[in-house]
Amino acid sequence: MTTFPKRIALLGSTGSIGRQTLDVVRQFPEQFQVVALAARSNVSLLAQQVAEFQPQLVTCFADTPEVEARARELLPQAVLGEQGLLEVATHPEADIVVAATSGLVGLKPTLAAIGARKAIALANKETLVMAGHLVMQAAQRAGVPILPIDSEHSAIWQCLRGEEQRDIARLFLTASGGPFRSATLEEIQGVTIAQALAHPTWHMGPKITIDSATLMNKGLEVIESRWLFGVPYERMEVVVHPESIIHSMVEFVDGSIKLQASLPSMHIPIMNALAYPQRLDRTGAEFIRELSWPTVANLHFEALDLPRFPCFRLALEAGRRGGTYPSVLVGADEEAVELFLAGKIRFVQIAEFIEEALERHTAIEQPDVTTTLETCAWARRMVRELWKKRA
Amino acid sequence: MTTFPKRIALLGSTGSIGRQTLDVVRQFPEQFQVVALAARSNVSLLAQQVAEFQPQLVTCFADTPEVEARARELLPQAVLGEQGLLEVATHPEADIVVAATSGLVGLKPTLAAIGARKAIALANKETLVMAGHLVMQAAQRAGVPILPIDSEHSAIWQCLRGEEQRDIARLFLTASGGPFRSATLEEIQGVTIAQALAHPTWHMGPKITIDSATLMNKGLEVIESRWLFGVPYERMEVVVHPESIIHSMVEFVDGSIKLQASLPSMHIPIMNALAYPQRLDRTGAEFIRELSWPTVANLHFEALDLPRFPCFRLALEAGRRGGTYPSVLVGADEEAVELFLAGKIRFVQIAEFIEEALERHTAIEQPDVTTTLETCAWARRMVRELWKKRA
Repeated sequence: MTTFPKRIALLGSTGSIGRQTLDVVRQFPEQFQVVALAARSNVSLLAQQVAEFQPQLVTCFADTPEVEARARELLPQAVLGEQGLLEVATHPEADIVVAATSGLVGLKPTLAAIGARKAIALANKETLVMAGHLVMQAAQRAGVPILPIDSEHSAIWQCLRGEEQRDIARLFLTASGGPFRSATLEEIQGVTIAQALAHPTWHMGPKITIDSATLMNKGLEVIESRWLFGVPYERMEVVVHPESIIHSMVEFVDGSIKLQASLPSMHIPIMNALAYPQRLDRTGAEFIRELSWPTVANLHFEALDLPRFPCFRLALEAGRRGGTYPSVLVGADEEAVELFLAGKIRFVQIAEFIEEALERHTAIEQPDVTTTLETCAWARRMVRELWKKRA
Repeated sequence: MTTFPKRIALLGSTGSIGRQTLDVVRQFPEQFQVVALAARSNVSLLAQQVAEFQPQLVTCFADTPEVEARARELLPQAVLGEQGLLEVATHPEADIVVAATSGLVGLKPTLAAIGARKAIALANKETLVMAGHLVMQAAQRAGVPILPIDSEHSAIWQCLRGEEQRDIARLFLTASGGPFRSATLEEIQGVTIAQALAHPTWHMGPKITIDSATLMNKGLEVIESRWLFGVPYERMEVVVHPESIIHSMVEFVDGSIKLQASLPSMHIPIMNALAYPQRLDRTGAEFIRELSWPTVANLHFEALDLPRFPCFRLALEAGRRGGTYPSVLVGADEEAVELFLAGKIRFVQIAEFIEEALERHTAIEQPDVTTTLETCAWARRMVRELWKKRA
């Protein structure tokens, strides 16, 4: 049985998921209370959040001298530096840690939070992709739940409520298909940064938007699903669904399929994760638009055209191979997307650089945290070197 | 925890649901065993079923002298007459009673089975529509589950697994829309028997096919849902979904919606009800065709156009009014559909006769079984008299 209020420690409070998490807390003041906040560089927004939510602890990574100076000015009480993330993640008053940082920085705090027996509401993709074996094992040992915030995983997780893991036949992850769903191979060759950033149904940060355009994002989600739900790769499929209304599906052994739907919104998965095992009444929550059925007249489904989306294939290969391959994938993708967003490589080169980094890697099985992070850094350097050679 | 094999008593073994129930038993011989069979008049099929499943008890209603003679010849061991239904329903060896008779005849045996603490797999619509208050109260008192077999109710029931009743915001029952989904009011005026019997997605008996064409069937399902799931009428909606892939949906208070899907097949709801709380592995069960997502390219949803389907409105009005009104609805509809199928009234007159019977009725609140059945018989006579007057 859940007791409210739940006390929340939030890693990444000024990012997209962080802000929407605070929307939920604002809407449900009797259910949730913020005890600790961590952000990286948006000091002015963090200061506003501190004024509004009055956490016991505020920390700022402040990874540049300018951010540090601003943090000292606006938030003299803040703990500065990366260490702050660990303090937020293990805050003694917290019941649940929302891991909503982007990138690698979330991995160690998430493991620390599990060690401190906090429930984990997980939005950070890299954590499970690179270290799913460590995270799930630690969570099982500590007896803490990993509550997914991503819309696809939340959909599967909701469809699995009251069901047995052994009764899963297949998972169908839906994909909007991104901005290049209907583009030809030739058109994809000439894609601009602006085109790649124009996602048709979801509004997200630039890195994940590019990952959605390459479908790397969907590949990462398949790897995460392998860890979250324990389903082998051969029983997971991706279906393109341009409307982003059906967020994923579970087929059971008896042939029955359950689907979860809502208008595209991260607030619902966040509410689901925070309130679990209860559900919150959205009445009065203006941030949730109602999905009305005859209004949603058509839902379309189509097969994923693999040749046009090599990043998806690379992700699945890395996932199946396991070991340090997923860390190479994550690091190489981060660097390649950064190069693309800086105008230094073409869209189709993202996959090419990732593939080359994966090919040059010698895998290590069952990597620990340090190896995982080092592999990721190696892959970033490798992509940058490959680019320099070719430039 | 379920222990297999479950021992099944089957009421209505030669009807559509009965035959499909036996398909499931045949496919899963280690999970199920037939201990008692009851049929009305298809003696030769019943004899085949007896030879195959070797039940301890076989009964035949045999409501005509011809059927009785044939039953005595082919099934000398059979108990004849309506009493047999009660014996099957309360067979001491049965764990679960499948109530798959059509019409009123299922009501008393279902109540008897509940009294004998059998789990009830319910396919008969009239039972809950007319006597939902009695059935649900008796089931609660006896502590037995009512396991729905209808595809819409099975869908809702599956979506509610692991969820709390208080978290239901709305139920969306899907409707194929029947053969006259796109017909104009004028076209519906001239509908023939053959047109009304040509259902686009489901193959069923003539009565339920006509009820699907008038959407009376959907109205009855809404009334059943009120009893099965305890959701008030104002929180139930019907959405037309011509493909019959999504069998119904549940919206939760947080705005999340769950849907259940399969290709149109009654085998899956039957397997669900029989195996509950477990799921059976359909591997090798050729009667279930796999639903493959990119193959199902489009799902459509549209609003129900009430003016074209007055039977739906009448059903909801009768449901909301309660008391004996639903029994009038059932009786009047049975008689009116019979008159239509006999070529004696036009399609649009079905609703007219039902409406007139409802108007002439003086309701009784909280009717007992006898009052319920008498009201139903009154409504049949009323419709026949109205027809004679006009003929």
